[in-house]
Amino acid sequence: MYTYKSSENRLTELHYLLDKKRPNELSQLLRRTNPVDIVEFIEELSAEEALVVFRLLKKDDAVEVFAELEPEEKEKLQAGLQEREFKELLEDLNFDDMIDTLEEMPAAMVQRILKSSDKETRALVNEYLNFPEDSAGRLMTTEFVELKPYMTVKDALAHIKKVGHDMVTLYTCYVTSPTKEILGYVSLRSIVTNKPDTLIDDLMFQDVIYVHTIDDQEDVARTFQKYGFTALPVVDKTDRLVGLITVDDIMWIIEQEATEDFQRIAATTPDEEDYSKRTPLSLAKNRIPWLMFLMISATFTSTILKNYQHVVQAVIALNMFVPMLTDSGGNAGSQASTLVIRAMATHDVEPRDWVKVVIKEITVGFICGLALGLVAFLKCYFFDKVAMNVALIVGLTIVFIVVLAKAVGSLLPMAAQKLGFDPAIMASPLISTIVDSLSLIVYFTIAQIIIPGI
Amino acid sequence: MYTYKSSENRLTELHYLLDKKRPNELSQLLRRTNPVDIVEFIEELSAEEALVVFRLLKKDDAVEVFAELEPEEKEKLQAGLQEREFKELLEDLNFDDMIDTLEEMPAAMVQRILKSSDKETRALVNEYLNFPEDSAGRLMTTEFVELKPYMTVKDALAHIKKVGHDMVTLYTCYVTSPTKEILGYVSLRSIVTNKPDTLIDDLMFQDVIYVHTIDDQEDVARTFQKYGFTALPVVDKTDRLVGLITVDDIMWIIEQEATEDFQRIAATTPDEEDYSKRTPLSLAKNRIPWLMFLMISATFTSTILKNYQHVVQAVIALNMFVPMLTDSGGNAGSQASTLVIRAMATHDVEPRDWVKVVIKEITVGFICGLALGLVAFLKCYFFDKVAMNVALIVGLTIVFIVVLAKAVGSLLPMAAQKLGFDPAIMASPLISTIVDSLSLIVYFTIAQIIIPGI
Repeated sequence: MYTYKSSENRLTELHYLLDKKRPNELSQLLRRTNPVDIVEFIEELSAEEALVVFRLLKKDDAVEVFAELEPEEKEKLQAGLQEREFKELLEDLNFDDMIDTLEEMPAAMVQRILKSSDKETRALVNEYLNFPEDSAGRLMTTEFVELKPYMTVKDALAHIKKVGHDMVTLYTCYVTSPTKEILGYVSLRSIVTNKPDTLIDDLMFQDVIYVHTIDDQEDVARTFQKYGFTALPVVDKTDRLVGLITVDDIMWIIEQEATEDFQRIAATTPDEEDYSKRTPLSLAKNRIPWLMFLMISATFTSTILKNYQHVVQAVIALNMFVPMLTDSGGNAGSQASTLVIRAMATHDVEPRDWVKVVIKEITVGFICGLALGLVAFLKCYFFDKVAMNVALIVGLTIVFIVVLAKAVGSLLPMAAQKLGFDPAIMASPLISTIVDSLSLIVYFTIAQIIIPGI
Repeated sequence: MYTYKSSENRLTELHYLLDKKRPNELSQLLRRTNPVDIVEFIEELSAEEALVVFRLLKKDDAVEVFAELEPEEKEKLQAGLQEREFKELLEDLNFDDMIDTLEEMPAAMVQRILKSSDKETRALVNEYLNFPEDSAGRLMTTEFVELKPYMTVKDALAHIKKVGHDMVTLYTCYVTSPTKEILGYVSLRSIVTNKPDTLIDDLMFQDVIYVHTIDDQEDVARTFQKYGFTALPVVDKTDRLVGLITVDDIMWIIEQEATEDFQRIAATTPDEEDYSKRTPLSLAKNRIPWLMFLMISATFTSTILKNYQHVVQAVIALNMFVPMLTDSGGNAGSQASTLVIRAMATHDVEPRDWVKVVIKEITVGFICGLALGLVAFLKCYFFDKVAMNVALIVGLTIVFIVVLAKAVGSLLPMAAQKLGFDPAIMASPLISTIVDSLSLIVYFTIAQIIIPGI
């Protein structure tokens, strides 16, 4: 695994120096430690210790560490800091991190802090907080390098050297018009590998790929993946450049969106909080509505069974295979639905492809169904030693159920998407419940055809 | 959505110019189009058209476009290119892209191409192909900037200007000893913002986080996410720097790993190929083994039902609720298993936390079970109008089943992980099958207690 002489050892060393009260050596070691690991260290400490360590950090590291801390850890630190100290820290944060921190704080304190900020910052903060949650506007930062087309490589390098320190990235610089429209972009790579007197105008790539402030973060992540960029510019409604999103903020989104889909597929209400941090009550709250809904829906199977009670009583052997049949239908259905849901999430399949997908799934269902039906027939007849006609009913039912389950399992997620719902709600549990009822009807209908008069 | 005056329009424009046979304008427009979109364009063309367009590209774009093409498109192009042309193209590819291309080609052709390559390249290719699939060694590229500690900022910039063109990234440069050990890394950011006579030795960060050639790509992705890097160095067994992995290759892995888990959760064998590109036969092949295994396992329920046949025949009303009960158990179990599987995949939960997780899930199960049991009792008694004792049996059974399902659903994925299997195989379908059998036993046992003598 990754190491720098092992991340774990580093933490042990830091704890040791803190316990032994050796601030100079601790400060030295902190300087050589990645801020991500410092965050891990601080989160293991008491409020007092955390404050001691935090004050030993050099300014840049302190800012980066603070930005990465969990909300409750931020609060812990903030309680110990002077208000002036805290305000300075806030001002040094990147704009997006400052907003995150403000959002987590009590409203009264935010008001107090903003009151003493300059007018420009206040306006910007308010604008920011107006962007929809999970939008590009909320993700972006406002610290980026702006160049002008008439600059030379030498001018650009001098400008970057001057303003570079406060910028989130220097590696993609945007070239703007006097009215802030994007004219193009130029990479630091092409700046440093070209002659000093080359014009930025000649180096810049004009066809900029950008996102809008109101675009959903999932679409933003997709644009990053498609083009492999490390940064994307964000424009407002009037197409003026207002911010920048960097790839490190995006990697979490790809993972978070997948986690949300996993939660929906498991028939629970999605929740951004980590599983390990949630209480049983909060977990139960997200699960009960779905379990209840599915249980009530499943009682439909009771009605069907009641209607066919005379069939079960006539041939009691048929009853034995009910759970196996409904399970197989459910499994075949969830294979189809989960794969289609994932294919839509990664934009491999779109709802307009529905005819193609359903035909494909029915074909798959037919192949799977034949294989399963044959084995089920042989197993029932030779192993369970039921009558030939019962074995035949079970085998035939499997074929029909699997085909039906694949069709339903692929169709419903696409229908949900088309109707503007999240397709992931059409996952295994709901598909199983629907397929169960269909399976029972198919089973008893086939039984009545093969054994007439029951 | 993202645009550069809309990606779709650009494609339409390119098609138009190609159809109207206006190579000069086409070539102009291609120069202003992102290679990712050129790939999309070429993949819509016939072999002859693709070759025409490909030859219109400027060299850098041609190399980038070729690297991004699907294997079958590469083959199409390659068939039209002269062998000399193709060899030149191969040599211009980044090393990791060259390897990808060679891997997709028939062995005989690879041999022929390698025969005419220099000895060094041949050795490198063979070494590369020896790394395990999905390892850091396979992902890395060998084109990175190496600096020496005694260089000044001015020297470094001159060196970067000289070699920069062939490098995958210039933004992280590695400082190495004469024996190729990593001494530290320095960002281009810190090079361009510091004075010309500063020593690289004073700028470099010494505690380098790196991965080994044999590390799994999933671990590599996790390191990228944890530290937010855009590049990570790769070292060999003797800790010498041998390559570099960039973040754009990693974003796909995060997504691909999630997709594999979705496939396992759906009880199908994982497959890297996109759903839309797979044939029904290939899909069926990955699904049948699991469906068959689950169907055979589910026949265990038949045995249980057979054993309790006398109970069913004594109180036929009990039979009606079997599918509803097994479904509810399955759903409760898959909620637990899917959430635990995901939490382990994102390293939020580790197998060593199993006691904590199981206790949490049992508590959740108890809360959910009570809510569901109460509703089930009321529904059976007032709505289905069954006898009070039958309603009581159903309600009580639900409570027990949900608790049991949560325990099994959380425990089994962690046990699988502990035993070295992928926890995702312990997903909904398998959990449902196990919980089904347990549910039936619980149901009929409670029935025998509440209605003695059946």
